[in-house]
Amino acid sequence: MIVAYQGELGAFSEEAARLFFGRAVPLAPRKSFKDVFRFAATHRASYGMIPIENSVYGSIHQNYDLLLKHKLHIIGEVKLRVQLHLMALPGVSLRDVRSVYSHAQALGQCDDFVRSLRRVNVVAYYDTAGAAKMIRERDRRDAAAIASARAATTYGLRIVRRNIESNHRNYTRFLALSRKPADARRGRKTSIVFAVKDAPGALFKALAVFALREINMLKIESRPLVGRPWEYLFYVDVEGSAAEKRMQQALSHLDELTTFARVLGSYPFAGTSKD
Amino acid sequence: MIVAYQGELGAFSEEAARLFFGRAVPLAPRKSFKDVFRFAATHRASYGMIPIENSVYGSIHQNYDLLLKHKLHIIGEVKLRVQLHLMALPGVSLRDVRSVYSHAQALGQCDDFVRSLRRVNVVAYYDTAGAAKMIRERDRRDAAAIASARAATTYGLRIVRRNIESNHRNYTRFLALSRKPADARRGRKTSIVFAVKDAPGALFKALAVFALREINMLKIESRPLVGRPWEYLFYVDVEGSAAEKRMQQALSHLDELTTFARVLGSYPFAGTSKD
Repeated sequence: MIVAYQGELGAFSEEAARLFFGRAVPLAPRKSFKDVFRFAATHRASYGMIPIENSVYGSIHQNYDLLLKHKLHIIGEVKLRVQLHLMALPGVSLRDVRSVYSHAQALGQCDDFVRSLRRVNVVAYYDTAGAAKMIRERDRRDAAAIASARAATTYGLRIVRRNIESNHRNYTRFLALSRKPADARRGRKTSIVFAVKDAPGALFKALAVFALREINMLKIESRPLVGRPWEYLFYVDVEGSAAEKRMQQALSHLDELTTFARVLGSYPFAGTSKD
Repeated sequence: MIVAYQGELGAFSEEAARLFFGRAVPLAPRKSFKDVFRFAATHRASYGMIPIENSVYGSIHQNYDLLLKHKLHIIGEVKLRVQLHLMALPGVSLRDVRSVYSHAQALGQCDDFVRSLRRVNVVAYYDTAGAAKMIRERDRRDAAAIASARAATTYGLRIVRRNIESNHRNYTRFLALSRKPADARRGRKTSIVFAVKDAPGALFKALAVFALREINMLKIESRPLVGRPWEYLFYVDVEGSAAEKRMQQALSHLDELTTFARVLGSYPFAGTSKD
């Protein structure tokens, strides 16, 4: 068994993978989300762990598109609080720091702190953990990275300032992917993607198949239908399992009203990590 | 009168601004979308033109968030076909090109063409028109940019390969913003943002206020409600004007079902540019 994720060792996706699959699970870090999907889809006993949504920044739309493209099943989810720290080589203090490296989104999430720094270059990097790795590898005593506590441990950096993210209610939700579906009877949540007919009220009718059966909708996300300008695909998360009778009836009703519909997975809810 | 947009001269937003406000309209190029909103919100007789959605890549979510933050009104929309060309200094041929510069999304949109180039560095730049400008300013005879025909004209570059975008059904929709609302009686389309109560079926009920009155929904977009993880704001476009009786009834019904609702504007439809 091996789990692919995007980023360097120390990335948040690594933490999510270990939480879901177990601390000691073998991991395959990949360069891009596309590579994670490809790896999980083609290797035996392989899985993927991808971020799908951040509570401040919204959905990771590329991963919605990749869910459609590949035939993988969602087997579970993990919610992780995003905690960002400023880290540097041991012995380096905030006074010594002339450059701060991190992923553009992490820099944005620490905007208040970053603005408070004087005479410091702020540099966007491809990955949070990658920034920490670079500081270690190049022995940069004039620089700091913004990354996770795991990245500090992985690359032997010391945390100079803790929890510098502006919004502490900042969570990312990850999805665990597999070539085989999870046992639907254990599912409490079902993810579905569909396209409606190009007719007035079509989306409303599609959502009615759930509402009329008192199946609660947790999330809806729209994505463009490529090649059909101003038409959309809809990704919905609803409460309940595809193994339940009323869900099966809702899905069969959905088939009547859509040009395309696919269940991406039925899986248990994640709790939200407290720290 | 002056219209702010994001990017350099020659950007697609400039084209959209000229199409909507007239060829000779005075323009104020700005560095970021945030600056466009700020300019349009604070200067007298000033307007903004922003991209909101691409038919291949989806919504520009940052601009949805900025629509909420600022109190500007949508007064119209423009749809533009995205045509991308490879351009270089006069006398430079494809054989001479060692580096290709463009915005990352434009590079993505020309992926098939870019992959067909051999021994060429592909470099992501902050802006398509900015890449064209740089080639002119630095007199780069070893490089080419991927940008609009307008950018070629603006910076005196010659088009080496025309329409290199992979998907020719590639359109971007832009919104015209103003401090004063448009005459609602001329509106054919209304944009609304709302947040629903945290209760089962809440979104379905909110959409019913339109469906039950046979008001057609054209688009729905969800964005995270910051500080309330896994709750959402919804942006919907519906057919009809806020000046119509049934729309006013729908909006008053929507108020009963939501914790917050705001009309962003009622405005005429854009045609889709043929070329």
